Amino acid sequence: MSIRVGILGYGNLGKGVESAIAQNDDMELKAVFTRRNPENVKVRTAGVKVLQADELSHMQDELDVLILCGGSATDLPVQTPQYASMYNVVDSFDTHARIPEHFAAVDAAAKKAGKVSLISCGWDPGMFSLNRLYANCVLPEGKDYTFWGKGVSQGHSDAVRRIEGVKDCRQYTIPVEKAVEAVRSGSNPELTTREKHTRECFVVAEEGADLAKIENEIKTMPNYFSDYDTTVHFITEEEMKRDHSGLPHGGMVIRTGVTGMEKEHKHVIEYSLKLDSNPEFTGSVIVAYARAVSRMNKEGMSGCKTVFDVAPAYLSPKSAEELRAHML
Amino acid sequence: MSIRVGILGYGNLGKGVESAIAQNDDMELKAVFTRRNPENVKVRTAGVKVLQADELSHMQDELDVLILCGGSATDLPVQTPQYASMYNVVDSFDTHARIPEHFAAVDAAAKKAGKVSLISCGWDPGMFSLNRLYANCVLPEGKDYTFWGKGVSQGHSDAVRRIEGVKDCRQYTIPVEKAVEAVRSGSNPELTTREKHTRECFVVAEEGADLAKIENEIKTMPNYFSDYDTTVHFITEEEMKRDHSGLPHGGMVIRTGVTGMEKEHKHVIEYSLKLDSNPEFTGSVIVAYARAVSRMNKEGMSGCKTVFDVAPAYLSPKSAEELRAHML
Repeated sequence: MSIRVGILGYGNLGKGVESAIAQNDDMELKAVFTRRNPENVKVRTAGVKVLQADELSHMQDELDVLILCGGSATDLPVQTPQYASMYNVVDSFDTHARIPEHFAAVDAAAKKAGKVSLISCGWDPGMFSLNRLYANCVLPEGKDYTFWGKGVSQGHSDAVRRIEGVKDCRQYTIPVEKAVEAVRSGSNPELTTREKHTRECFVVAEEGADLAKIENEIKTMPNYFSDYDTTVHFITEEEMKRDHSGLPHGGMVIRTGVTGMEKEHKHVIEYSLKLDSNPEFTGSVIVAYARAVSRMNKEGMSGCKTVFDVAPAYLSPKSAEELRAHML
Repeated sequence: MSIRVGILGYGNLGKGVESAIAQNDDMELKAVFTRRNPENVKVRTAGVKVLQADELSHMQDELDVLILCGGSATDLPVQTPQYASMYNVVDSFDTHARIPEHFAAVDAAAKKAGKVSLISCGWDPGMFSLNRLYANCVLPEGKDYTFWGKGVSQGHSDAVRRIEGVKDCRQYTIPVEKAVEAVRSGSNPELTTREKHTRECFVVAEEGADLAKIENEIKTMPNYFSDYDTTVHFITEEEMKRDHSGLPHGGMVIRTGVTGMEKEHKHVIEYSLKLDSNPEFTGSVIVAYARAVSRMNKEGMSGCKTVFDVAPAYLSPKSAEELRAHML
């Protein structure tokens, strides 16, 4: 029997989850839930209902797992504990500093309900976290490096859009190739924020806007840009649409370390992602973990989990025998 | 309390396990067991006893986990089931085709004993297998590629040493850079054995040996060399010692795949290793899994496991809270 999945929230991530479900024969999208008027939401999977989020109050028998596709700032801190008390759930909560309190709230709700929740799923946090953990366990004496990009940062794009005179912006985060090469060489460099990444902004300005002022406001914006070397390009709306409509991303997690009685041998472990679509890849990771969550709950587990707590075999539709015979 | 570890077999891998234990504060090497005369085995960790393998018949109360460092051809098929019936064990069994039968024998012994065994640990099988599995679960529609090297293949070096007139050999397996680049580009190439790797042999010949005959025997050797482009260099014993005494290795696992309702987005997941010492890195992976095996058994689990069955958090000496706060 298929694993029956619900999606709450139909933005970029919700759509990425939808297309990932379509690629997994053992999963079935039962319904998309929205806080908007369902009549205004058109999903792409034939026969799938769009329902008011309120309907989730009584659909426990129809869903094996609910995937929460809201934002980390205001949606998930409320939604994940709320729905963890009724469903197996997966979210992509990515506010690193608040993970401990989010975990505690979700864990209490999930344990009480006898359900499994998995938080902070995707690629960072998610696959990158896993690779940091594995590499740290294998090479206890070493140093971690994470690079992001080249890819679109939604948060930075939004920050620029809030500047007066800016109509639209797409911000790319770009790893500095020289820094990446230094890390890969095993030389264990100490790298500043500025040395690791550059930022590039493509901006559509309002007619008559003061371009020099916009450029200066971007480059000096604290937290977002002032610690980086930033390049600003002004382009037309047509160019934005033609050249910057995708949401590519990616990056690398690298750990370098030593082994040997004299610590005489160096090792480099690198995990890298090149993604044409950040939300679709994130959705694909989430759907694999939705399978795991549903299975773990069927085996009697409950409470809040992260990717660290899930044995890899739970992610696969294949049997343990098949995995041992063909993937080990 | 420390996790008390025994090592059976003190070759390259046993030594790699020894140095890895020294890098992990929560692990303690209790004894090295050997089938040789213990007086002829000198270990490098102060205060550690060297004992006859027979002593393992009565040391169950002194070891939390026994690491089996024998070979896959004849040692492990006998040793792992034997000791799985007495200890938590970890081995590095790497004869892919025989993993299912090895698993069955070890699983039966471990279940009966109420112990946990983990087989086929290291980097391939091991970390490479994990990365194949994760990448397949995240990108169900895609293609897998594994490249090995640049590194020393012990099996191929041994095969050349058996040729008449050969005193010593070191064989390097080298990935073809053009093939790697084609895979990374996402073009999904179909690659023959010859297109993926080349082989390079450094040979010390006996005095007066027929070098042309040796070179020809190497290049035409079925299974080992005939499907590859092979280069043979004749060198002196001094050059062998000076330039080829290390055991470097590494490689890459790459999966390329598509997502989207129209499968319109490409993604590349790559995991790569650059290792100065193959046996020390393998030993480091094994020691992390020895920690996991000891813990899983303390929680009441039993039976044979592989890396697919171990939740990543078990590998780390850090608490779940620390991992969530600092690695997620």
